[in-house]
Amino acid sequence: MNYENLTLHTDKYQINMMYAHWLKGTYQEKAVFEVYFRKLPFDGGYAVFAGLERLVHYIQHLHFGDDEIAYLREQEEHYREDFLEALRAFKFSGDLQCVPEGTLVFPNVPLVRVVASIFEAQFVETAILNFVNYQTLIATKASRIKQVAPNEVLLEFGTRRAQEADAAIWGARAAYVAGFHATSNLRAGMLFGIPTKGTHAHAWVQAFDTEEEAFRVYAEALPEQVTLLVDTYDTLRSGVPNAIKIARMLQQQGKRMNAIRLDSGDLAYLSQQARHMLDEAGFPEVAIVASNDLDENIIEGLKAQGARIDVWGVGTQLITAADQPALGGVYKLVALEKNGEFEPVIKISGNPEKVSNPGFKEAYRIINKKTGKAEADYLAMEHEVDIQRGERVKLFDPTHTYIYKYIEDYEAVPLLKSIYAGGELVYKLPTLDEIRAYHQEQIRTFWPQYLRKLNPEGYRVNLSTELWELKMNLIHAHTIM
Amino acid sequence: MNYENLTLHTDKYQINMMYAHWLKGTYQEKAVFEVYFRKLPFDGGYAVFAGLERLVHYIQHLHFGDDEIAYLREQEEHYREDFLEALRAFKFSGDLQCVPEGTLVFPNVPLVRVVASIFEAQFVETAILNFVNYQTLIATKASRIKQVAPNEVLLEFGTRRAQEADAAIWGARAAYVAGFHATSNLRAGMLFGIPTKGTHAHAWVQAFDTEEEAFRVYAEALPEQVTLLVDTYDTLRSGVPNAIKIARMLQQQGKRMNAIRLDSGDLAYLSQQARHMLDEAGFPEVAIVASNDLDENIIEGLKAQGARIDVWGVGTQLITAADQPALGGVYKLVALEKNGEFEPVIKISGNPEKVSNPGFKEAYRIINKKTGKAEADYLAMEHEVDIQRGERVKLFDPTHTYIYKYIEDYEAVPLLKSIYAGGELVYKLPTLDEIRAYHQEQIRTFWPQYLRKLNPEGYRVNLSTELWELKMNLIHAHTIM
Repeated sequence: MNYENLTLHTDKYQINMMYAHWLKGTYQEKAVFEVYFRKLPFDGGYAVFAGLERLVHYIQHLHFGDDEIAYLREQEEHYREDFLEALRAFKFSGDLQCVPEGTLVFPNVPLVRVVASIFEAQFVETAILNFVNYQTLIATKASRIKQVAPNEVLLEFGTRRAQEADAAIWGARAAYVAGFHATSNLRAGMLFGIPTKGTHAHAWVQAFDTEEEAFRVYAEALPEQVTLLVDTYDTLRSGVPNAIKIARMLQQQGKRMNAIRLDSGDLAYLSQQARHMLDEAGFPEVAIVASNDLDENIIEGLKAQGARIDVWGVGTQLITAADQPALGGVYKLVALEKNGEFEPVIKISGNPEKVSNPGFKEAYRIINKKTGKAEADYLAMEHEVDIQRGERVKLFDPTHTYIYKYIEDYEAVPLLKSIYAGGELVYKLPTLDEIRAYHQEQIRTFWPQYLRKLNPEGYRVNLSTELWELKMNLIHAHTIM
Repeated sequence: MNYENLTLHTDKYQINMMYAHWLKGTYQEKAVFEVYFRKLPFDGGYAVFAGLERLVHYIQHLHFGDDEIAYLREQEEHYREDFLEALRAFKFSGDLQCVPEGTLVFPNVPLVRVVASIFEAQFVETAILNFVNYQTLIATKASRIKQVAPNEVLLEFGTRRAQEADAAIWGARAAYVAGFHATSNLRAGMLFGIPTKGTHAHAWVQAFDTEEEAFRVYAEALPEQVTLLVDTYDTLRSGVPNAIKIARMLQQQGKRMNAIRLDSGDLAYLSQQARHMLDEAGFPEVAIVASNDLDENIIEGLKAQGARIDVWGVGTQLITAADQPALGGVYKLVALEKNGEFEPVIKISGNPEKVSNPGFKEAYRIINKKTGKAEADYLAMEHEVDIQRGERVKLFDPTHTYIYKYIEDYEAVPLLKSIYAGGELVYKLPTLDEIRAYHQEQIRTFWPQYLRKLNPEGYRVNLSTELWELKMNLIHAHTIM
C-alpha cells in the first residue's frame, strides 16, 4: 500500500460530488473557489500565510493509481467503471492563484483561488485546506513569538509533542518562514535545508556517575558546539558550577563553550543567577538557552522580569499552536461559469460572518505612497479598473458602512500570484531564505499597531462598492420571505 | 529526496548523544527507558493508549540510507566516518514492551519500555513520543465523546482542520479505536480499513439553480446513501422541505432516504423542528446528522436540551484535541546496566511530579476477583513476587503515604506486552476491529466514577513499598546539602 500517495487525502464527499456531477454531465463546468479564513487566530492582528510549497507538491503528484482505484471500486459499488477510468486519467488542468508564503494576511481575503472544472476544483479542497490551515497557523504563532524576541535566537523544539510526523516537519518549516533560526528535527533539516540544533538530554547526564563527568565527555566529543543542560539534579548548586569547570577546560584547550541550557524551574531567577555565576567566572560570552513550555506570553513575561536569556527553545506551544490549534480556513464556491461568463454565487448563513463574498474578484493591498505602509486590503471584481489604475476609491467598513474614507496616491498591489495556468506550474517556488526575507519585508510594510500581540488595531479589509452591492443583492435574492 | 523515510524523524541531540557515547565507548551499555505521562488530558479520569502500530512500522523501517548519511556528514563535519558507518548498519536489536492499543492508561504508568543499548534506545525516543503522544491524545478525546453519545453514530470529519496529513489519518484511526464508526478521510479508509462516510457540501447546492434540483440530482446519482445538507440557504424554510420532496421521490422509487444534515444554527432547536417535519411527512426513519465544531461538552449540552440527533459528525475539536492539543508524554532513563545488573537511575526536579520513578519495573493492573473491576495500577520491581502471586499487598498513596489499604483476592495483570525481543518482532498486531472490541472491554473493567467526563474519581496508581523506598533513597542520594 502506497503510504506516500496523497491523492485520497480527501473527504469522501468530494468523490461523491464529483461522481454526481459526472453522471449529470456538469462535471466540466468551470468553477471558482476561494480559500480564506474568517477570524484571526490568537486574538492577534495578522496571520502569516504558509502552505504553498506543500500545495504545489500535492498538485504535481496527484495520481489515482491501481490501489486507489481498487479501493474506490470496493468502497462504492455504485461508482461506474467509466467514472473510475476518468479518475485514473485525473490531472489538475486548471488555474490556481495564491498569495506567496510569508505574506501577512487578514480575514476574508482570498489566500488561494482555484479556477477549474468543478470536477477538479472540488477534488482538491480538503488537502489544500489541511495544508494551508496548519502551516499558516504555525507561521502566525511563530511570527508572534518573533515579535516579542526580535533580537534573540529562536529554536523550534516541538517534534515530540507535534501532532504526528508531518506536523513536526511542516511546522518546523513554517516557524523558519516566520523568523525562527533552527529546528531540532533532522528530517525537516534534510528535506527543507533548515539549520538544525541540539545538544543533550537529561538521560545523557544520568548515564554517567557524575554530572561533571557527563559534561566533560560530551565536551570532548563535540567541542565545537558545547551546550550543557544544567538542571538534571540542581541547576545552581550542581549544573552551573559543573558547566563552569567545563568552560575552563575548553578555555585551556583554546576552545570556547557555547552555552548552558535551563529546562525547568524559575527561568527568570535561574537565568539571572547563572548569568552572574558565568560572568564572575570569566565567561560572559557563554550564552543561556531556556526551554520549558514557552510561548510569546511567557517569553514576554520573563523578559519583563529581567531574565537573562539569549536563546529560546520553543516546543509544544508553537508546534501545536496550543492556545488555538486550528485555523478555520474554508474553501468556498464564489462563481460558476454559465454560458461563457462567470456568475457569482453566495452561501447564506444565519451567522452573518459566515455569508461568503461572491464573485470572481481580485484582492489588492493598498500601499500608501507617502508612507510606504499598508492602508487596507481591498476586494474588487476582476474588471474594476479604478483600483488598478490607482484612482481615488472609497474605503468603507462592509458592516458599518457609515465608516468610510477616500484614498488616493496609493499603489494597489495584487495579492494573488499565478501558480498554475491551464494545469502548468508557472511559478518558481522561492527558496526558504527568500521566503524568510520576504516575510520580514512584509512585517516592515505594516504599522506596529497592527502587529501588537494583544489588542491590536484592526487592519481594514474592504469591499469595493460594486462587490458590496453584488453581495447585498444576492443575499436579498436568497432570502425567503 | 526520500520523504517517506522516517529515520531522521528525530531530534538532533539524539544523534549527538549517540556520537558522544560512541566515541566514549559506552554506546553498547544497556539502558532501560520508559514512556509515561504525568497528567491526564482534558481534566479527565483516564486516557486511551494508541500509537503501537505506527511505532512498529517505524522500527521495522529504520534505515540510514545514502541521503541520510550524506546529510549528517554535511551537517556535522566532526562526525567520524566510522560513526556514520555504524549508523548505516543501524538496526533496532533490543527489546521493547508496550501496552496494547485501546488500553485505559493512567499517569506515571509505563506505556512503552525500551531495553536496548543506549545507542539504540536513545535514538528512538523522539519518534516514539511523537506517535504515542498524538495518537493517545486523540483516542482519549474520542473516547470521551463516545462516553456522552454511546448509542449514536459518531463520524470523524476533521481532515481539513487537522495538523497536516499524518494527523488526519492517524487521528482518524485513533478515533476509530475509541469507538467512532467512520471517517470522512478516504486515505485513512484505504490504509487502515476504517469505514468512510460522506455526502455533499454547500458547494454542491450552490452549483445548481435551486436547492431542490441540487438535492434531486444528488439523490439520482447515489440513491442508496442519500444524506442531504439542508442549511445552504435556510434550514427550516428551504432545506428540510426540499429534502422531504426528495424523500418522497425516493419512496416512490421503492427507495429510502438516509438522512439530513445540519451544519449551522441552533442544533437543538433545528433538530427538533426538522424531526417534527420529517415525522409529520411520514419519514420517521430519516436520520438527522449534525456537525459544527462539536465536542463532548457541546454534544452533552445539546442532548440535555432534547436535541434529536442520531449521528454526530465531529471535526476540529476531536482531530486537534482542541482543549488540550498535546499530551506531555516523556521518555525517561530508569535503569542502566552496570556489571551485568540493571542499576536504577533517577531524574530529580524542583517540581515533585517531575521526579521519575527509578528502576526496571513491572506495571500491573489489579483486578478485584469479586467484582471483576480494576482497583489500582501497581508498579513494582521486576523481581517482586508477592504481587505476581496474588498475595496480600499494601496499596498506599505515594505522596500522602498515610492513605493506605491492603488488598487480597485479586489478579495482577501485567500491562506491558513483549513487542520486540532481541530486535525481532514477537507481537502479532491485532486487527483494528479487535482493538476496538478490546477497548470496549477495557471500559467495562472500570467503575463509571473513573470514566466520568467532569470531576472523575482519581484512579490509584501505586508504587510497591520496595520501589517507593528505592525512589526515596535515590532522591536523598542526589540532594545537595
